[in-house]
Amino acid sequence: MNTLPDWLAQVRFDENGLIPAIAQDAADGAILMVAWMNAEALSETVRTGLAVYWSRSRQRLWRKGEESGHQQHVHEIRLDCDADVILLKVQQNGGIACHTGRRSCFFQRLDTQGEPSWVKVDPVLKDPEQIYK
Amino acid sequence: MNTLPDWLAQVRFDENGLIPAIAQDAADGAILMVAWMNAEALSETVRTGLAVYWSRSRQRLWRKGEESGHQQHVHEIRLDCDADVILLKVQQNGGIACHTGRRSCFFQRLDTQGEPSWVKVDPVLKDPEQIYK
Repeated sequence: MNTLPDWLAQVRFDENGLIPAIAQDAADGAILMVAWMNAEALSETVRTGLAVYWSRSRQRLWRKGEESGHQQHVHEIRLDCDADVILLKVQQNGGIACHTGRRSCFFQRLDTQGEPSWVKVDPVLKDPEQIYK
Repeated sequence: MNTLPDWLAQVRFDENGLIPAIAQDAADGAILMVAWMNAEALSETVRTGLAVYWSRSRQRLWRKGEESGHQQHVHEIRLDCDADVILLKVQQNGGIACHTGRRSCFFQRLDTQGEPSWVKVDPVLKDPEQIYK
């Protein structure tokens, strides 16, 4: 029998067995990305101290940085009041979390002067072709 | 006909018409909460400058602070690279985002000394019975 330990049983995974996880820079609080975890990804994250997610597109564990080298060293893990969102405080290898080569995935800012529009406001730090080669 | 404006059509709501939204303190970067928005909630947030969510439990718009007074003044709205997560940078009225009376909903920290366990590490700032009366 494969009973979940208490700490893991207290996490409310959704009907697909997943929970959203926010990665936040442990040093300055910047939000780097949001991805999904299943119980195995969360367990491995705790065990190894490196962020592991569940890739919904590839339907497999995604050891962040496995291709890019942009691993995330986890300093702290938090759970919200409803137990349905995880927060990771991380140190981001290479200073780049986003597959576009930017520090953070949240690089589009809503410009509300006049008709609203999304504007890319953060720089690309490294060409993605150099990251995934 | 009720066509969405471009900026709203670019947002990838899920199969239920919802998108997760992170509220982050604009001043110090603390993550306060995560809730859901539909297109109407996001539009009203942009129009009014106050955070409006979609309550999945009540199945209606949730004007944050409508009962508690703990409104969120929105300073900035961001969208991630996949356009499926919203980030709000807010000023939190009363300094309390969580219905438990804490500043942030992420008050449970995983203690990994020995067998992991979730520990409530942040103080209750106000008795919820005093907030929702």
